[in-house]
Parts: sequence; structure tokens; C-alpha cells
Amino acid sequence: MSLLCVRVKKAKLHGSPDKFNSYVTLKVQNVKSTTITVRGDQPCWEQDFMFEINRLDLGLIVEVWNKGLIWDTMLGTAWIPLKSIRQSEEEGSGEWTFLDAEVLMKADEIYGTKNPTPYRVLLDTRFELPFDIPDDEAQYWTGKLDRINTMRIHDEYPLQDEVQRRPMPLAASQCCEWD
Amino acid sequence: MSLLCVRVKKAKLHGSPDKFNSYVTLKVQNVKSTTITVRGDQPCWEQDFMFEINRLDLGLIVEVWNKGLIWDTMLGTAWIPLKSIRQSEEEGSGEWTFLDAEVLMKADEIYGTKNPTPYRVLLDTRFELPFDIPDDEAQYWTGKLDRINTMRIHDEYPLQDEVQRRPMPLAASQCCEWD
Repeated sequence: MSLLCVRVKKAKLHGSPDKFNSYVTLKVQNVKSTTITVRGDQPCWEQDFMFEINRLDLGLIVEVWNKGLIWDTMLGTAWIPLKSIRQSEEEGSGEWTFLDAEVLMKADEIYGTKNPTPYRVLLDTRFELPFDIPDDEAQYWTGKLDRINTMRIHDEYPLQDEVQRRPMPLAASQCCEWD
Repeated sequence: MSLLCVRVKKAKLHGSPDKFNSYVTLKVQNVKSTTITVRGDQPCWEQDFMFEINRLDLGLIVEVWNKGLIWDTMLGTAWIPLKSIRQSEEEGSGEWTFLDAEVLMKADEIYGTKNPTPYRVLLDTRFELPFDIPDDEAQYWTGKLDRINTMRIHDEYPLQDEVQRRPMPLAASQCCEWD
């Protein structure tokens, strides 16, 4: 068991800033996290997410969506193999990932993407815990994460002391500078 | 060009009502709509959605997700071939669709689902316009939908007269009775 930490930093989209009101979804197998929606062609989210990972042969699916009133339109997608993600206890500056229009599938699983778009997203991805921790420790972490995830919003305060070491998901409210 | 109308009515989930805080996403190709999130093992959404459809060989992907604080977990998915959807100007009582755990893919496209879950969702699906309308009429509808979809929330009022014939998406605020 390992913890995959992902910081969705920002994106560069192409076109009129008015056209975009976008958000990012991260998916690993049957689990999904979503950022807030931000306007403009250079949206900045700076939001942290984490996932429990048991299988290293999968990938992280990144999707950038443009929010609409009737429907949301996919701006692009990327697939990051979990095996390519570094192990680190510290945040990094992230990597720019170009987005494609479609996924490639084999035997019912995604193994890549195709058809480049001009859009790209800056993500900082890392594994926080080694894969070979003892079973009881893995169970402790799994149980803890499950409890946090399934609690209701109004249950947040009683659990506060338990989660204070790692308050998440964490959304930075300040926007970032562009290079 | 045709308009696919979908009413997401309700679902029957299995397990403690406390466990569920769920929403439904509908996807056709690169377009997605999402319901609000509703608590309980018998969530009721009664929300209407519509999609522009140009290719009948695709399917509507339905996903039911359980909302969590850290991540959302997929409860189940269904794939409804567009060819199987009736043409009608009138709403119907809907059909119960059992949800599976995974999708089946071939040549990078979904063609079904596998691994049954005990969960099911009640959907009313129909096509509202014939496929053989003249090009100019199809363009008129496409343009109209695009304009509605890309307008900002604060642009809603000036466009109200244009959309009043078909205000959407429409969320019924009352909950439904269970059979």
C-alpha cells in the first residue's frame, strides 16, 4: 500500500480566456477526485489530492473538463503510468503534461492516450510511503483514510485531531505566478 | 443531428443509507453532465439532461459515484447503446438499469459492461428530434445549444426568452415516491 500524492497546479489552454471555465479530475481505477472550477485560459487550482495505491501496473488518468450550463466538454486527457512516479516526502515544482483528445485501451484497461491537443497541465506527482510497509501499518493507513473519506461534512470537527497531521484535500486560495 | 433527452430519476443502492451520498454522470463521447449529490440508499434526483448526437453507433455511459471527502468511489456503471433508445416527444416512466463494476472496451471504445453490482438506476431516455432533419435546421439547433452551454451564469437572464421553450437542465425539487 502506498499513498499517491498529486498537486494539480495550473494549466495552459489555447483560445479566448472567456471560453474556459475548467476543472481537473484525477482517476485511479474506481476512485476519482475533482478540483474546483476556475475561469480563464491559464487556470490555477493548486489543489492537493491523494489516493491509496495497491497496484503499480495501473496509471493515473488526468482529465481536464470545460464546464458548461448543459454539459461539460473534455478539453483533454493524460495517462501517467504509476511506475513512472517518483517516491518523495517533499513537494516538487511539478511537470508539464500535454493533453491528448482520446485514450488508448487494451484488454479493458487504459495504457496511453492519442491525438494531441494544444493544452497542457502542470502536476506534481509523488508516492509518499514505500510499497513494502508491514501489513498492519498498511491496514492502519487504509482504515484511517476510509474513515476520513466516508465521514459527513458535519462530522469533520470531531475528527479534526485525527486528521490534523495531514489536512486534505487542501486548496490553496492564492493564485500562482506564470513563468 | 438529434437531441438525446435523459431524465435521471432515482436509484436503489444496497447497504446502510448512511453510507451513500451519490451522484450520476452521463457521458457521450467527450461530453458529460452530472446530477446533484443526494444522500441515502434510495437517492432521488429527477434531473433532466440533453445531448447533441451525431453518431448512432455510440452509447450513453452512465456512472453512479459515491461522494467522499478525499475521493469519490464508483458504485457502478452502465452502457446504453444509442440504437436501443426510442424516439418520442413525451416523457416516459423510465427503465431500471442494473449497474456493473467495469466497462468492456474494444478498439478504444466501450461496447458494454461487466461484473454486476446490486445497484440499479431508473432512467428515462429518448430521442426528441429525427435524425433526418435538414442541415440548416440541425445547424440552428447546434448553434442554439452551444450558445446556451457556453454562456456564463450571469448571462442567463438576457437569453431567457430564447431558452424559455426548453429550460434546462431542469431539477425537480420534490422527491419521488417509491414503488
